Amino acid sequence: MSKKKRLIYLPLGGAGEVGMNAYVYGYGPEGAERLILVDLGVTFPDMDTSPGVDLILPDMSWLIERRDRLEAIFISHAHEDHVGAVSRFPDLLDVPVYARAFTANIARGKLKEAGLDERIVRTVSPWPEMTEAGPFSVGFVPISHSIPETSALVIDTPEGRLVHSGDFKIDHTPLVGEPFDEAVWEEIGKSGVRALMCDSTNVFSPHAGRSEAELEPQIEELFKGAKGMVVATTFASNVARVKTLALAGERTGRSICLLGRAMRRMIEASVETGVLRDFPKVVSPEEAQGIARESLMLLVTGSQGERRAASAQLARGKYNGLEMKEGDLFLFSSKTIPGNERGVIRIMNQFSEMGVDVVDENAGLYHVSGHANRPDLAKMHALVDPQMIIPMHGEHRMLREHVKLIKEGRREGIVAVNGTMVDLSGNAPSVAGFVETGRTYVDGSVQIGALDGIVRDRIRMALNGHVVVTLILDEANEPLGEPWCEVMGLPETGRSRAALVEVLENDLGQFLARAGAKTLADDDKLEQEMKRIVRKVAQDEIGKKPEVTVITSRLA
Amino acid sequence: MSKKKRLIYLPLGGAGEVGMNAYVYGYGPEGAERLILVDLGVTFPDMDTSPGVDLILPDMSWLIERRDRLEAIFISHAHEDHVGAVSRFPDLLDVPVYARAFTANIARGKLKEAGLDERIVRTVSPWPEMTEAGPFSVGFVPISHSIPETSALVIDTPEGRLVHSGDFKIDHTPLVGEPFDEAVWEEIGKSGVRALMCDSTNVFSPHAGRSEAELEPQIEELFKGAKGMVVATTFASNVARVKTLALAGERTGRSICLLGRAMRRMIEASVETGVLRDFPKVVSPEEAQGIARESLMLLVTGSQGERRAASAQLARGKYNGLEMKEGDLFLFSSKTIPGNERGVIRIMNQFSEMGVDVVDENAGLYHVSGHANRPDLAKMHALVDPQMIIPMHGEHRMLREHVKLIKEGRREGIVAVNGTMVDLSGNAPSVAGFVETGRTYVDGSVQIGALDGIVRDRIRMALNGHVVVTLILDEANEPLGEPWCEVMGLPETGRSRAALVEVLENDLGQFLARAGAKTLADDDKLEQEMKRIVRKVAQDEIGKKPEVTVITSRLA
Repeated sequence: MSKKKRLIYLPLGGAGEVGMNAYVYGYGPEGAERLILVDLGVTFPDMDTSPGVDLILPDMSWLIERRDRLEAIFISHAHEDHVGAVSRFPDLLDVPVYARAFTANIARGKLKEAGLDERIVRTVSPWPEMTEAGPFSVGFVPISHSIPETSALVIDTPEGRLVHSGDFKIDHTPLVGEPFDEAVWEEIGKSGVRALMCDSTNVFSPHAGRSEAELEPQIEELFKGAKGMVVATTFASNVARVKTLALAGERTGRSICLLGRAMRRMIEASVETGVLRDFPKVVSPEEAQGIARESLMLLVTGSQGERRAASAQLARGKYNGLEMKEGDLFLFSSKTIPGNERGVIRIMNQFSEMGVDVVDENAGLYHVSGHANRPDLAKMHALVDPQMIIPMHGEHRMLREHVKLIKEGRREGIVAVNGTMVDLSGNAPSVAGFVETGRTYVDGSVQIGALDGIVRDRIRMALNGHVVVTLILDEANEPLGEPWCEVMGLPETGRSRAALVEVLENDLGQFLARAGAKTLADDDKLEQEMKRIVRKVAQDEIGKKPEVTVITSRLA
Repeated sequence: MSKKKRLIYLPLGGAGEVGMNAYVYGYGPEGAERLILVDLGVTFPDMDTSPGVDLILPDMSWLIERRDRLEAIFISHAHEDHVGAVSRFPDLLDVPVYARAFTANIARGKLKEAGLDERIVRTVSPWPEMTEAGPFSVGFVPISHSIPETSALVIDTPEGRLVHSGDFKIDHTPLVGEPFDEAVWEEIGKSGVRALMCDSTNVFSPHAGRSEAELEPQIEELFKGAKGMVVATTFASNVARVKTLALAGERTGRSICLLGRAMRRMIEASVETGVLRDFPKVVSPEEAQGIARESLMLLVTGSQGERRAASAQLARGKYNGLEMKEGDLFLFSSKTIPGNERGVIRIMNQFSEMGVDVVDENAGLYHVSGHANRPDLAKMHALVDPQMIIPMHGEHRMLREHVKLIKEGRREGIVAVNGTMVDLSGNAPSVAGFVETGRTYVDGSVQIGALDGIVRDRIRMALNGHVVVTLILDEANEPLGEPWCEVMGLPETGRSRAALVEVLENDLGQFLARAGAKTLADDDKLEQEMKRIVRKVAQDEIGKKPEVTVITSRLA
C-alpha cells in the first residue's frame, strides 16, 4: 500500500530571523517527497555572538542528505540573504539553479569566483513562463522590492497553487524594474491559491509603504543646496536608489564617480542585463581627482558602517585618492540595520570632525523601505486570497505578529520557524514534524558549526583574557624549574602591585612543591589543579577569572 | 608682574560622546586657576570595542595632577553617566561633593560600597541657596529631566554668571519632581549670563519634546486590555515613569512587585529622600508567586537588554520564582540606546517564543525622552539669553549641530570636545589649549588605560583565535622533541583534512631541523620565525592568521 501523498513546506533559514533565506517545498509520499529549494542566502556575523566569523550560512544538512530528491533551486532575487550562499554548498549543485537574468548574472559570478560550474544557472523569463521541476511548475512573477528583477514565485503543485512572495513591497513607481501589478495578482489568485508564504519583515510598520519615486525631488533639493562635494551611500544592490542619486547629482551639475567594488559590480551587472538604462556616464576615481569639488558626486559602498567599505575609509582618510573636506555633504540614503548603529554613528562623528555635513534618513526624506508594511501585507493577502498563509522571513516576533494580522483577515496561519515541516495538504496548515537546523559559520576558508565551541572559546578569551601555563617535568615526574605563565589580554599588575605572572608563577610553584608523586604523574589532575589556582589568584589580584591553557611537557 | 586672571571651561568627559560627564571650570591666573568639577560619570563598554571591560571612566589625570587647586565637586543629578564614577577617583575626594538630597543619597551609597568616607557628600538645598567654592558660588536650580531632583547649575564667578544646564528637558508636568519654570530662568538670565554650557543629546530631534504626563492614559489603556500578567521595564532611575507604571497597574487591579536590585534601590532612595510619594504598596517576589497572574504586575530592570538584569532572566526562564507565560504582556517603556538593539531584540524574540505580547515605544505611546529637543534647546537659549553658548554632552555631530542652532540664534558658540580648554573671559569663547584626555577601563578590580593594548589583544584573540607554541631546548640549544601547539578558538582541521595542530607542529619541526646554531641560540629570532610559520600555515589551512604566543624554555 502506498503512502498518501502530501505537500510540505520546510524553512531551513529565514524563518525566525531576518537573513539567510532557504525554503524547501516538497510533494510526494511521506519521506519520499520530491523537493525544490527556494533561495539560498547568507546572514552576517557580529562581534557579540560571532567574532571573527566571515559569513553565516543556514545548516543545509537535512537537504544535502536528501539531495537525490532535489529537483531544482529557484532564486527569487539577488540580495545576499537570498543568493549569497549559492556557491557554498557544492553538494546541492547537481540540479539547475533558476533565476531571472539579473539574479542569474549575480549567481553566476559567485559560482565562478568559487571555481564552480556557472552553467548550472539557467535564466528564465518572467511569468507567465513556467519552469517544470518534478511535480512542481514554477513561475517568476515580477514584484517590486529594492533590487532589480525581484520575483514572487507561483508554484503550481498537484495539490493546487502556492505563492511564495519572497521579499516585496507595493510600489507602483519603483523607477527601476516592474511596478507592483494588482491585476496580475488578482488573476493569479482567481484560479484559487492553496497557500501564500509571505514576507514578514515590516509587519510592525503601521503605515502603508512609500514609493521609491517620492525621494527624487527631495534628494535633488538636498544636493542643490550643497556647496562642496556630495557623497551618498546606499546598498549597492538598490539600483533604483543608486540611479535616483546619480540623476540628482547629474541634474545639479556633478560628475558621478562610483567607489567600492560592490557599487561598481552592481551597476555593471544592471547595465549588462539591461535592467538599468539612462545611467549617467561615470568618471574614474583618477578622473574625479581632477574635478572641482562642487562639480563632483561620489556614490559609495558602506551604508551599514562596514569598516572596510568606502564610507568608513573616507571617514578615516583618503580612498582611491579622494578625501572629504569641510563643507562637503554626506548622505546616508539607507536604513541602519539593527546592530550596525555603532559603526554608522562612528562614521558620522568622524565626518563631523572633518566639518562634513551628514544627513541620514531620520526625517524620512531620503530613504524608503523595500518591504511591505502592515497594511500592504493585508492588501497582498486579499489580492492573492489564499486558503492559508504562512509568514516567512522575519524574527519570531514578526512571524507571530504576522499570524495575528492573518487571523484578523479570517484566514488560517501558523508560526513556522526554521526546521518546522508544515503539511499544506489539508484545509489548514499543520505541523508535520521538526528537523534539526542551525547555522554554519564561514570562518576564513573553513565551515564550522555554530555550536562547535570554537567561537565560544573566542568570546571567552575576549571577555576574560587568556593565561597559558607551561610546565616541564623530568623522567622522574619532578618539575624542571618553575612553571611559566604567559598572559594575553590581561592587566600586567593587580592588587598586590607585583607582576601578575610572578604572583601566578609563585603560587603555582608552591603548589608543585607540595604536590605528591601521584598528582605529579597525572596530567589531568595537574591541569585541573593549576587551572583552579590560576583562576583563584587572578580573581584575587585583578578581579577576573581568565581562560587557562595548561601545557605539560614530560621529558621521556 | 602677575598674570591676567581668566575664566576657563574644560570638559574631561561627555563632550564628544553621550556618557561619562566630567566638566572642569576654573578661575584665576593662567595655570593657577582655582577649579571646580561638575559631574563625574561613567559610560558602558560594548563587545565591539571593549570586550570584558566592566565600566568606562573618563581619564581624570589632568585634574588629579592639579588636585591641590580643586575646590569642590558638584553633581547635577544621579544618573550613572553623571555620578557613577564618584567613588572611582579617591585622589579627588579631599574636597566636598555637593548634591541635592536624592543625588547625595545615591552618591553616598557608592562611596560606602567602595569603603570610602561618605561624609564628604554634602546635601544642598536648591536655588536660591548658593554654595561657595573658591572664586565660585554655585546654585542648584531644579530642572525637569528623567530622574528626581535634577539640577542645572548657576555658577557665579568674578567674570559674571555661568549656567551649566546639565541634562534637561522642558516639561511642565513631570509627575515627579519640579516642573520646568520659565520665570526662574528669566530671572536668572535677567542679571546677565556670560555663558551657557548646554546639553546637546537631542539636538537632532526636530519637534518640541513631550511631557511625562502624556503617557499616563495610554499606559493605563494598554494595561486595561491585558489578560495575563503585566511586566514593564524602564530605567529604574526614571522614578516618575516607574510611578506612572505602578499607578496604572494599581488602577487596573494589580499588585505591584519590583524585580532587580537597581529597581528596588532607586525606589527606596526616592521614598527615603521624600521625592516619591503615593507609590503603591509593593509585594515581595515570594508574595507575588501566590497572586493570580491577571492581578499582578512586575516592574523590572533591564530595559537595555542587559544579560544579567531581570528582563533578560525572565526571557530565559524563572527569576525570583516568577516566570512569563503565554498571554502575558511585556512593555518596554524606554528607548533602546544605540548599540543595545541586539540585546533588546533577542529578549523580544524570546518572549515571542513564549507567547508573550511585547510592546515597545515605537509608536511613541509609552515613552518620552528626558532631553530637550531642538526647539526646546532654542527656547532655553532664549530664556537664559547668554553672551555665548558651549554645547556639551553629546557626540561630535551633536555638538556641531548644536553650534549651528546657536548661530541661527545669532549667539557665539564653538565645538569644544573633551580636552579642549575654552577661555570664557572674552566676548566670545576662545580655545586656550588642549589637554590630554581619554578613557580608563574598570576591568575586574583593576583600572587600565584604553590604549594599554590589553583590550586590543582580547579583540585580536576574538577575531583571529590564539595559537600557543611551546618549545624546549636543552643545554646545547638543541630542541628536546618536537615543538607543541595548542589552539584556542580555531577549527580543528582545515584544507588538508589533517589536524591543524599536527600540520603546524610538522612545519615547525621541519624549520627547527633546518635551523642553524645561531638561530637556535636566539630567543627573539626563534619566536619571530615560528610566529611567521604558524601564521602562514594557518592561512593556508584555514584561511586565518591567528594570534601566536611562542614559549621557549631552555634547560639550564
